[in-house]
Amino acid sequence: MKKKELDALFRVPAGKKIRLKDYDPGWAGTKSLAKLESDELKEKAKELVREDLENLSKAQEVLYASDTWSVLVIFQAMDAAGKDGMIKHVMSGVNPSGCEVSSFKKPSDEELDHNYLWRYARRMPSRGLIGIFNRSYYEEVLVVRVHPEILDVQKLPDGKKGKDIWEERYQDINAFERHLARNGTLILKFFLHVSKKEQKKRFLARLDDSAKHWKFSTADVAERGHWDAYQDAFEDAISATSTDWAPWYVVPADHKWISRAVVAEVITKSIENLDLKFPKMTKERMKGLDEARKLLESE
Amino acid sequence: MKKKELDALFRVPAGKKIRLKDYDPGWAGTKSLAKLESDELKEKAKELVREDLENLSKAQEVLYASDTWSVLVIFQAMDAAGKDGMIKHVMSGVNPSGCEVSSFKKPSDEELDHNYLWRYARRMPSRGLIGIFNRSYYEEVLVVRVHPEILDVQKLPDGKKGKDIWEERYQDINAFERHLARNGTLILKFFLHVSKKEQKKRFLARLDDSAKHWKFSTADVAERGHWDAYQDAFEDAISATSTDWAPWYVVPADHKWISRAVVAEVITKSIENLDLKFPKMTKERMKGLDEARKLLESE
Repeated sequence: MKKKELDALFRVPAGKKIRLKDYDPGWAGTKSLAKLESDELKEKAKELVREDLENLSKAQEVLYASDTWSVLVIFQAMDAAGKDGMIKHVMSGVNPSGCEVSSFKKPSDEELDHNYLWRYARRMPSRGLIGIFNRSYYEEVLVVRVHPEILDVQKLPDGKKGKDIWEERYQDINAFERHLARNGTLILKFFLHVSKKEQKKRFLARLDDSAKHWKFSTADVAERGHWDAYQDAFEDAISATSTDWAPWYVVPADHKWISRAVVAEVITKSIENLDLKFPKMTKERMKGLDEARKLLESE
Repeated sequence: MKKKELDALFRVPAGKKIRLKDYDPGWAGTKSLAKLESDELKEKAKELVREDLENLSKAQEVLYASDTWSVLVIFQAMDAAGKDGMIKHVMSGVNPSGCEVSSFKKPSDEELDHNYLWRYARRMPSRGLIGIFNRSYYEEVLVVRVHPEILDVQKLPDGKKGKDIWEERYQDINAFERHLARNGTLILKFFLHVSKKEQKKRFLARLDDSAKHWKFSTADVAERGHWDAYQDAFEDAISATSTDWAPWYVVPADHKWISRAVVAEVITKSIENLDLKFPKMTKERMKGLDEARKLLESE
């Protein structure tokens, strides 16, 4: 699929107020694919991911060698939407020296003692690297919005928790990302869009399979009770923060291999789009290499 | 002096395009002070600083105990304007546990591999603390503007070094500071305004006094050759980034004790203005203290 087609299907246009209802979590590929049986579909998607991973691996090498751009990939989703599996499968083809994954759990005391972007800003990928954020500063307008009592833990001064706080946070996040983009960070944000029905199925599968018990937390089911509030928070946040310099992609996530194929395609095509080149060899540098060769051969 | 009077004299109003010519580096106090002989003036200013330091020390204690606000103090100036002496004298009264000084020299390779705000953002003071920046991210629109060849070292991708770069940097800095302010950082920025004549005098004094030789670098004299370009860069930067949430103060710096008195006053009054209180003792907490006393007394 071309970058244009991908964007038309999944990228949220800057400034557009979206409704998640308009995006089908069960989307199973373009027409020709959707006709296939589910096993064939899975095979087809797997194949696509394999191809993309080869290209991604090449793209990452040039990214590393040219050493000017960094890539920030953000994953946000409801529980069991497949974030962990996504990172495992899509990033596995990439040289681990060129890729850092940051997972954000509960903030530490030191982190709470700073502005909320602080801990995320510290983990920004260096030039040449791909940084994957498994959850991100978007939690500050998602879980914190659904559970505003978290604001009390954040130790904000009186008068800094007014009704405009979410709008202000969208504004600050947009400005932060614009600064990153202006200084050479390619930003790609993925919302893995899973249906409530599919989440239930996956939760039950975790309960049925003792090897998956560790992945299950009763808190997850409690959060499921806030499903609608979360969908609203996602809708608002995605609409307010999908920008030309840091777009959101709403990725259908009821079929895991479909979502992986979409994400792999978007990342690969976006890096290729930067049109990076290996650094040019100067005459001087070539002369240096020649001399090194002679030195070795004369040993 | 009251906060209002200080602001009227030295604070740059948000949105105002200033000219440094309109600020007298040799300002020697309000009328009653200006009549004094220079030795008397110095004594008077020293006394003022001593008083302020007592109040600053108290203000810092409440800041620390209330643990919601942090204070960021930025010093920028031409060489020999007195930044180091300022920090030594004005912050010496403050409990060092409540105060961190960050001096920014040449960026490291790791720092150059990130967006330019990265290394400064990492050094932001925690809630309850005063953070002093001896130079800051303003260097990115001062020295880098006077010597744009530094941009090449910053490894920005092609197309990210256009003619709008300074406007974009002002915009990003304002947004960054607004984010900090919204999350509980009081920001105070001081330009120590020294005259070209006074700088020459101080440079010569360093050359005459072998104990001050270490402070002298021939590069400083070379930078003096760019005096006008620096003044222009300061004027533009200060005009573009003096905001309601992070104001600039232009401090007359030809008389060291005058500049120290002004800075001490502004910092102290601004923290006092936050109207912070020691945390209230709840009944429960008081009960806990009572029990602790009983336990100790029964030993």
